[in-house]
Amino acid sequence: MKIKYELLKNDTKTKSRYGLIHTNYGTFETPMFMPVGTQATVKTLSPEELKSVGSGVILSNTYHLWLRPGEDIILKAGGLHKFMNYDGPILTDSGGFQVFSLAKNKKKDITEEGVYFKSHIDGSKLFLTPELSIKIQNKLDSDIAMSFDECIPYPASYEYAKKSTERTLRWAERGKKAFNNPNQSLFGIVQGGEYEDLRKYSARETVKMGFDGYSIGGTSVGEDKITMYNMIDYAVEELPLDKPRYLMGVGDPIDIIEGVIRGIDMFDCVLPTRLARHGNAFTKCGKINIKNFKYKEDFTPIEQDCDCYTCMHYTKSYIRHLIVANESFGQRLLSIHNIRFLTKLTEDLRQSIKDDNILEYKDKFIKQYRGEDENH
Amino acid sequence: MKIKYELLKNDTKTKSRYGLIHTNYGTFETPMFMPVGTQATVKTLSPEELKSVGSGVILSNTYHLWLRPGEDIILKAGGLHKFMNYDGPILTDSGGFQVFSLAKNKKKDITEEGVYFKSHIDGSKLFLTPELSIKIQNKLDSDIAMSFDECIPYPASYEYAKKSTERTLRWAERGKKAFNNPNQSLFGIVQGGEYEDLRKYSARETVKMGFDGYSIGGTSVGEDKITMYNMIDYAVEELPLDKPRYLMGVGDPIDIIEGVIRGIDMFDCVLPTRLARHGNAFTKCGKINIKNFKYKEDFTPIEQDCDCYTCMHYTKSYIRHLIVANESFGQRLLSIHNIRFLTKLTEDLRQSIKDDNILEYKDKFIKQYRGEDENH
Repeated sequence: MKIKYELLKNDTKTKSRYGLIHTNYGTFETPMFMPVGTQATVKTLSPEELKSVGSGVILSNTYHLWLRPGEDIILKAGGLHKFMNYDGPILTDSGGFQVFSLAKNKKKDITEEGVYFKSHIDGSKLFLTPELSIKIQNKLDSDIAMSFDECIPYPASYEYAKKSTERTLRWAERGKKAFNNPNQSLFGIVQGGEYEDLRKYSARETVKMGFDGYSIGGTSVGEDKITMYNMIDYAVEELPLDKPRYLMGVGDPIDIIEGVIRGIDMFDCVLPTRLARHGNAFTKCGKINIKNFKYKEDFTPIEQDCDCYTCMHYTKSYIRHLIVANESFGQRLLSIHNIRFLTKLTEDLRQSIKDDNILEYKDKFIKQYRGEDENH
Repeated sequence: MKIKYELLKNDTKTKSRYGLIHTNYGTFETPMFMPVGTQATVKTLSPEELKSVGSGVILSNTYHLWLRPGEDIILKAGGLHKFMNYDGPILTDSGGFQVFSLAKNKKKDITEEGVYFKSHIDGSKLFLTPELSIKIQNKLDSDIAMSFDECIPYPASYEYAKKSTERTLRWAERGKKAFNNPNQSLFGIVQGGEYEDLRKYSARETVKMGFDGYSIGGTSVGEDKITMYNMIDYAVEELPLDKPRYLMGVGDPIDIIEGVIRGIDMFDCVLPTRLARHGNAFTKCGKINIKNFKYKEDFTPIEQDCDCYTCMHYTKSYIRHLIVANESFGQRLLSIHNIRFLTKLTEDLRQSIKDDNILEYKDKFIKQYRGEDENH
């Protein structure tokens, strides 16, 4: 069965919306944040822990799984759900972003047919095409697959952005034709760089092809926030109301709020787990680094009112000790907290849409997060 | 309250015995295996996971906690149980073994007063005495503390072993005098190297001082198995029936069986978690390395009849992928299985003592473990 988006409420003052995504693995509310399990594991966490922090859909990376262990092994295992023991919905990306980011400083060659680049593991020569990306994802048997696209760098010339955007549209068409998995849904990806007309053109043309949902790609690649928010606005204007909208690779709390207000339903980012590995924790008053000396004898949780396993059982002093001593249980505790922070944020955003007060929620959150709250 | 050992059954054909240890954190059956949480965490595992694999007492290292985060921070946290969120019994070692092993290739200076050596973290000069070791452990507030001893290397000359053994006895006396924590028990440690008369002398003199339990130290330091088993026999002959006996640092399955047959009640070892970090798993048919190519498409659990979380939910193929991709969830899954393997082994040994068939159990286990079982 394909996923189905059910729009339950449109906010009157913003473009934010509350809805449901029905999947083969249950129904989940949107807006939602999706943790990233690059290599068929959300770093340091078990599936049970992911559920305990309120994760709905999780994301895994086609490029990484293609290289290791290989899509055929996952197919033989019965698909990605069975392979990694996750019975919630899984979204896979197309590999396009990894070609862009991992091969950033390496030679890559983008042709009409596909992209030649080198493996980040052993330097071997690889060639990824729209058809291959879809074929791999069909085998992985994720619930939601992504069209193969080129992530346009920022800044890019208008000419380059136009050429690339048109090619991504042709790739989307090719991928759609190659697609063959009745239990999987396929999202189109809006590109267009920082250019309003290209973003709108990309969105319109992608929508014409008729996908199960629409992603906005090519943000969080170095552009300023205003440019990023504009990219979202340009695209969303052209997207249909009855399909989910997914802003790729965005996990900064304020960006999530700004995205929701602009009509985004789904977000993903490695940020919560990556921050954890470096000893950072989200708090309502901004990010903290647990390695800071001042937490050495701080026997309070990261956040007093947080309902996550970490905050219910462990002190900053202990987590600091684990991170300083390079014990992976520390990363695990911080990952649990950080993912919970973002899933709780989307819970609160959903409630604020229902309560018609998302702009008030935004102001209050940002004031506190940026440390401008006088009561703090 | 001090711990209390309750002897429930003496085997008739061997020295093995079934009993209970009553602690401030519950009652646990012996013989038992204790996982090691060096830095106030059993690597990659949560307290809940430790309980799920049947861990009773866990061990933590005084030397490591002294250096980082420091015993005063743990005291302020309310003791080690509260600091690390473990409400089961905890045993701390004395630091003597770490001085021996971590400073092996570094300059150390053993005097009557104590040991001068260098920190393995920053090379700073440290001085550990029997009194300081006990004082640190009193502050950590573990359930069972260890006397400060010198772990005699193997081989050692008779003269050196004698001198060292006598000094360890004087250190035990000094530590006992310094000891001051009514909720903590103190174990004496039998040394004596490979020499029968020194082992027996050490055991007799240690017992005369009257400890809450007795450890056998200085095994697993490079000696052959026969020598090791002899060291156990020499010591156990002199130990009282009404106190628990703890063979330090031993976790090889066959050594555990041989130890139990020789009258040992408690074992600890970093082996299950260390093996896990290198991709190794215990099985009834011997150790396997999950990185082996033959497990790439092996969609069966590590052991079909194992009741651990790992074997109930994950395949060798997936765990292999995680270990090859250097994902810590792989180490976690293997640690869970490996610790469960040893706690299950002690459960089976306890049952075989009750059933009067421990020698048959031993023969069967060893045959299969060494791959001599023709049915396998």
